[in-house]
Amino acid sequence: MQNQPTLADIRATHDRIRPYIHQTPVLTSSSINQIAGMELYFKCENLQKVGAFKIRGGINAVSLLMENEKPKAVATHSSGNHAQAVALAAQLFGTKAYIVMPTSAPEVKKKAVEGYGATVIPCEPTLQAREDTLAKVVEETGAIFIPPFNDYNIITGQATAAVELLEEISGLEAIIAPVGGGGLMAGTALATHYLSPTTTVLAGEPLGADDAYHSLKKGEITPRAEKPNTIADGLLTTVGELNFPIIKELVSEIITVTDEEIIAAMKLIWERMKQVVEPSGAVPFAAMLKEKEKWQGKKVGVIFTGGNVDLGKLPF
Amino acid sequence: MQNQPTLADIRATHDRIRPYIHQTPVLTSSSINQIAGMELYFKCENLQKVGAFKIRGGINAVSLLMENEKPKAVATHSSGNHAQAVALAAQLFGTKAYIVMPTSAPEVKKKAVEGYGATVIPCEPTLQAREDTLAKVVEETGAIFIPPFNDYNIITGQATAAVELLEEISGLEAIIAPVGGGGLMAGTALATHYLSPTTTVLAGEPLGADDAYHSLKKGEITPRAEKPNTIADGLLTTVGELNFPIIKELVSEIITVTDEEIIAAMKLIWERMKQVVEPSGAVPFAAMLKEKEKWQGKKVGVIFTGGNVDLGKLPF
Repeated sequence: MQNQPTLADIRATHDRIRPYIHQTPVLTSSSINQIAGMELYFKCENLQKVGAFKIRGGINAVSLLMENEKPKAVATHSSGNHAQAVALAAQLFGTKAYIVMPTSAPEVKKKAVEGYGATVIPCEPTLQAREDTLAKVVEETGAIFIPPFNDYNIITGQATAAVELLEEISGLEAIIAPVGGGGLMAGTALATHYLSPTTTVLAGEPLGADDAYHSLKKGEITPRAEKPNTIADGLLTTVGELNFPIIKELVSEIITVTDEEIIAAMKLIWERMKQVVEPSGAVPFAAMLKEKEKWQGKKVGVIFTGGNVDLGKLPF
Repeated sequence: MQNQPTLADIRATHDRIRPYIHQTPVLTSSSINQIAGMELYFKCENLQKVGAFKIRGGINAVSLLMENEKPKAVATHSSGNHAQAVALAAQLFGTKAYIVMPTSAPEVKKKAVEGYGATVIPCEPTLQAREDTLAKVVEETGAIFIPPFNDYNIITGQATAAVELLEEISGLEAIIAPVGGGGLMAGTALATHYLSPTTTVLAGEPLGADDAYHSLKKGEITPRAEKPNTIADGLLTTVGELNFPIIKELVSEIITVTDEEIIAAMKLIWERMKQVVEPSGAVPFAAMLKEKEKWQGKKVGVIFTGGNVDLGKLPF
């Protein structure tokens, strides 16, 4: 663990990114509390810049690069929120961004990325095509790759959401975030470990992309045999090498939820809290609803990770 | 004007209802500001109790009744947010509520009203049937009718939303609310007149229910010849007798918008601000988008009136 981010690293990150991000509100809902039988505190990263927590890590990674290496450009591959985060971060720090996006990505997301002045490079919708195209872009442009999660600068960036939640709401008995690649999850776990060590750290994961669940059980990274398949399109990736050891040490339990449970939780959030939250962002609340017996009457922090959905393709 | 609510009346109302309502947040969005070319401040009554500003007037009217007449019950007819407001207010102040609802009202709204312990009385979906059924209920139960808008206690209640917005954001050059029966609109106009007299008061109205627009033009209440027809189902009613004189004196302009403009504005709010706002609640923003040339660079307050939508019947 000696290389892992310290509290001082997370604090320094927070100071670095604070001028560029929103301190998002923590919302509560008495009707949601009644349904869940808990006292729930929702950290609304759906109201964050670019509509998701990803801007925290993106700003941190890009601003550090611009302080040090000063690259001519940055690049990444992403069909989702990380793409927008890197594009906006590059715009803010005055460098070019090349974003490799699968042709299957919604037009609205491509437009958003281009809206931040980035160049979108289309590729076939496979991981291989994405990596190959990115490698070519990096070679041709000299851009530096900004990884989506497997990077300590990304992890400390994402950790700052939990820092704000823990500083605003004291006495949380549990905190829960979703796990995909593990950037937010590892960050949340570290922040909680340092700032509120008696708070139980939980993770929510879609059953259709449950590699972290099996990895935690087995004690080592265990990618799924089958291709992941879930409506929570932000959580399809396998947990990262730097992320997993932190999760293994600090996360008490990974709760898996079906797509039906995710959609039902998302609908409750929209109906009762009037917050547009994307399927991946509804996973932690779905997990708490599933485990409601266990956490009756408890004070629990939940991270709403993002709100970028295609309104033309809603599951209800 | 001598009977009209004074600033002291509005202040007393605010003190009366404050323990029971949320001081809703004022949200901003840089991408929305860029699109509109204005500095917009959105008062989020979609995050209010029962999901709409209506609880302000409902609490005020019911609590005053319980202080004075102490009726055995209260009653109203409504297919929407006023129904929930009266039901919750009655529950909070320990009296029974009878709510006459047209059979066409969505099941989810009936359930919400019943969830607050009120008795729902179904009726045919015509104004005549609603009024007849209500008269029967009042006669049989001794309930006192809580009017939805044509009442000074309702008007001072709804005025408190603008009071909070004006106190939180200073220097607004305009403020805009939607006009249906005129409870919120008259309240907003009065609050602005007293607290920020140099702020221009605007109204947004659906073209398919534009009685207030024509009434203001003609100088007297002018119901539509045709039955109103708009997606903004909270704004179908004709402006009230007590509401109109206030609107006539204090509202500078009523801007009408088509259903297409309302839907486009609503979609922008959901996509960019991640706020679930109902069609009626999107009308003022739609109106500002229509008049954007006129208000370029100006600081404008906009009331998001509510967020109660049937997610199974979205217009996009």
